[in-house]
Amino acid sequence: MQRKSFQTMQCPIARSLERVGEWWSILILRDAMLGLTRFDEFQKSLDIAPNILTRRLGALVESGLLERRRYSERPVRYEYVLTGRGRDFRPVLWSLLQWGNKHFAPEGPSVVIVDRATGGWADPVLVDSASGKRMTFPDFQSAATPAASSRMRKRYAFSARSGAPLIASGSGEEAVQPKGGEML
Amino acid sequence: MQRKSFQTMQCPIARSLERVGEWWSILILRDAMLGLTRFDEFQKSLDIAPNILTRRLGALVESGLLERRRYSERPVRYEYVLTGRGRDFRPVLWSLLQWGNKHFAPEGPSVVIVDRATGGWADPVLVDSASGKRMTFPDFQSAATPAASSRMRKRYAFSARSGAPLIASGSGEEAVQPKGGEML
Repeated sequence: MQRKSFQTMQCPIARSLERVGEWWSILILRDAMLGLTRFDEFQKSLDIAPNILTRRLGALVESGLLERRRYSERPVRYEYVLTGRGRDFRPVLWSLLQWGNKHFAPEGPSVVIVDRATGGWADPVLVDSASGKRMTFPDFQSAATPAASSRMRKRYAFSARSGAPLIASGSGEEAVQPKGGEML
Repeated sequence: MQRKSFQTMQCPIARSLERVGEWWSILILRDAMLGLTRFDEFQKSLDIAPNILTRRLGALVESGLLERRRYSERPVRYEYVLTGRGRDFRPVLWSLLQWGNKHFAPEGPSVVIVDRATGGWADPVLVDSASGKRMTFPDFQSAATPAASSRMRKRYAFSARSGAPLIASGSGEEAVQPKGGEML
């Protein structure tokens, strides 16, 4: 599957999934953000086979999401701490949490995001930090940039149905608006 | 793995991953949001084995993210269209896109989210729709609610390090602030 993904690797979503697209990896990041750092802590929380946990932790370290630190000399013990790149994954987790609460919590949410200043439950939405606009489709759409490969451009061309990709501004090419079809 | 996940199933992130935690599923949703609907379209875009694609599409239909519609009588052909639940996944994909662009696009982003009103590149951030506050850690943190199982509460209690879980307000219990440790 990793090999298959090679062709679509320019897609930022596919690249992200290369690092965290595995079920356990995302739950390990969740637990790391909850303060877990030690192998036995992750194992207890996730009820995961040691060999799988070892592999997933190793992959997250290799991808630069976790840093491996020795916390004991004898016996030699390591802990796994989030890097900046790992901490930057939090909005993805919060978006997953929000989606799960909306669609898969018929009994009501068991976990919510709280504004610690007020104690109130937060309702996370995506906003463009530049304009402050709420980012909803179709007012906001993903678009290929000039850096995109022909394969990537084809995907966006397809999405436009008009056969013309929506090229992001600043590309030096005239932006072509899609004539329909749903974009990401 | 699905069986293992049962114990943590109350976690909204785990529940979401039950539906989309598989690498291909998320890329299928990406392509569906780009307007792809037909088996051969997904297969061509993803370069995925037919039997795997069949399985993943079936799982997404079963989870209520895609709807299977007959678009041809003879030969009998079906297309797969996003449901409301599936469309609600877009913020997760956009958060993944943002994270990928920041950390895994050394050559510059090949895909960006565009404000179609201005053509400008958007910078998605999570905001609390209630207060308009930017949702950053540690001002915002996830917390167990009274609906949380003891296992869930333990996880949040751990994250607080103080041994006391941060209980979301409105729970009828006094909110206990964590004394440290990183929360999700």
